[in-house]
Amino acid sequence: MKEVFEKVDAIVIKTPDENFFYFTRRYGTWENSYAIIFPEKVEIIAPPLEEGKAHFYKNKDEMEKLLKEFLNVARVGFNGEKLSYRDYRYLKSITKARFVDVSKELKRMRLVKRKEEIEAIYRANRITRSVVENIEMDGKSEKELAAEIECGFLRKNATNAFPTIVAFGKHTASPHHLPSRKRFVTPALIDAGAKYMGYCADLTRSFVKGRGKKLYEIVEEALYMAIDEMEEGRKAGDVYEIVEKFFEKHGYKMRHALGHSIGINVHDGFSLSKKADFMLEENMVFAVEPAVYLKNYGIRIEEDVVIKAGKARIIR
Amino acid sequence: MKEVFEKVDAIVIKTPDENFFYFTRRYGTWENSYAIIFPEKVEIIAPPLEEGKAHFYKNKDEMEKLLKEFLNVARVGFNGEKLSYRDYRYLKSITKARFVDVSKELKRMRLVKRKEEIEAIYRANRITRSVVENIEMDGKSEKELAAEIECGFLRKNATNAFPTIVAFGKHTASPHHLPSRKRFVTPALIDAGAKYMGYCADLTRSFVKGRGKKLYEIVEEALYMAIDEMEEGRKAGDVYEIVEKFFEKHGYKMRHALGHSIGINVHDGFSLSKKADFMLEENMVFAVEPAVYLKNYGIRIEEDVVIKAGKARIIR
Repeated sequence: MKEVFEKVDAIVIKTPDENFFYFTRRYGTWENSYAIIFPEKVEIIAPPLEEGKAHFYKNKDEMEKLLKEFLNVARVGFNGEKLSYRDYRYLKSITKARFVDVSKELKRMRLVKRKEEIEAIYRANRITRSVVENIEMDGKSEKELAAEIECGFLRKNATNAFPTIVAFGKHTASPHHLPSRKRFVTPALIDAGAKYMGYCADLTRSFVKGRGKKLYEIVEEALYMAIDEMEEGRKAGDVYEIVEKFFEKHGYKMRHALGHSIGINVHDGFSLSKKADFMLEENMVFAVEPAVYLKNYGIRIEEDVVIKAGKARIIR
Repeated sequence: MKEVFEKVDAIVIKTPDENFFYFTRRYGTWENSYAIIFPEKVEIIAPPLEEGKAHFYKNKDEMEKLLKEFLNVARVGFNGEKLSYRDYRYLKSITKARFVDVSKELKRMRLVKRKEEIEAIYRANRITRSVVENIEMDGKSEKELAAEIECGFLRKNATNAFPTIVAFGKHTASPHHLPSRKRFVTPALIDAGAKYMGYCADLTRSFVKGRGKKLYEIVEEALYMAIDEMEEGRKAGDVYEIVEKFFEKHGYKMRHALGHSIGINVHDGFSLSKKADFMLEENMVFAVEPAVYLKNYGIRIEEDVVIKAGKARIIR
């Protein structure tokens, strides 16, 4: 937080942008709203339909007046990865400030989690586990199971962090399979996550019989190997490479990253990929998801981990 | 569609953007994917994790090569309301094309619905009605009811088009109330909508007893008045003003627009507001939601309508 304010005097966030929640902790849609973040305070500019403390505007003129007032600084930071071309042009046109794209800094800021963020991720994980691990698959279609899982989240006061993946048979060979009417057979794969108090979980379970068992054990070994290697001070890309080599030794290629940071978004900005050059730090949270996809089926196992006391700990 | 291609030779859409689904009809996330729309064809550029027909890229270089190939035209249209500042800069930097913001044209194009879009909205409405109209409210909290409704949508192979609003007692006075643990009392309000086959419904029901009945009748009268006035060729803003005058006659003010276009998004780009200067046309679809909010409670009634044979018809 401190570092970004060496570059800019204020940061403007326009909804929809997960940074609005990050800085304001306000739930809900907050349509056409702005958060202006200063080193010492956060101001919200919103239309009158929203609830809560904010500077409410009745029309565009009032909105513009408020924006001009709060953006009357030399350097305004903005999220270039989210702010639309149109909104960028508009904001720039109504102020004299220099605009600085701080999207990298915002993502970096969110990579190390605060205590209450980690607690929310723990709770999202517990909800996800309790729903996914008690599910009965026999006789059900992929779509039915996906709906049942998401219903389970809703009943526990959560939502789904992303569209639930349920894949049966050869559908497990597609990393991003869309649930179909296909009925349960093994191999089977469930990739689901609850979102609770604004924070995500992301877990994958694979179910195999017979010849798949051997491959399952290899993927599981890769998972625990990755978690063991994820120590504070370690370069993320190095962990990827260790797992990549392990899979190569068994004759398998990695089709996607080993994992990703999670938080307000299920993909929260950083990948555990070959090129990842950031260092693992205390209180970072990742989904770790080694996987092997063959022609006829695939196996993916995914756990969420937090770096605590220097080591990656499975969140459960 | 034809008109936009008088201004540009191709349109580039980057996910997430509802126009990706509009032009490609592909469900799913399609992370980091592009649709390039030409007058006669649509090309998709996507990472290899996605399923379906597309030009798949393995890395950024391959992605860039594909983008350069397909954007090798004089004028490229883009959605300035969605495309991020960063993506705009990137796309502009890799091509020689002139970039034209066609966000207005894209929204306008989507305002008049095709036959299959209207059919999907009908089905989303039927799902919403069957869930909301069979719900038992006694003894339940706002949160429990919202979860139950969203579960109902999931069981019918739909999702929720937006976070369900359930408001009891004085919470009905807030247009955008977030469901709480408050238990059922009248007045009560449910604003919910299913999304089915990519299209949204948006319905609101208010439940009142005693003194609220009179106000309910006024809001209901405003709803049918609005629907009666929504004829082909009518200026949208004029319909708003008729309803505004009707409410003023009874001593009430309108706190938000009379309604909005619906489609892939629940707010699909056009408001039935005072300043709305577009004309109503055959096959446009709107949610119409007159409402009165008093200090202690509010009443909103909302139906979706399609302009058919020159007149607004309630979708049910």
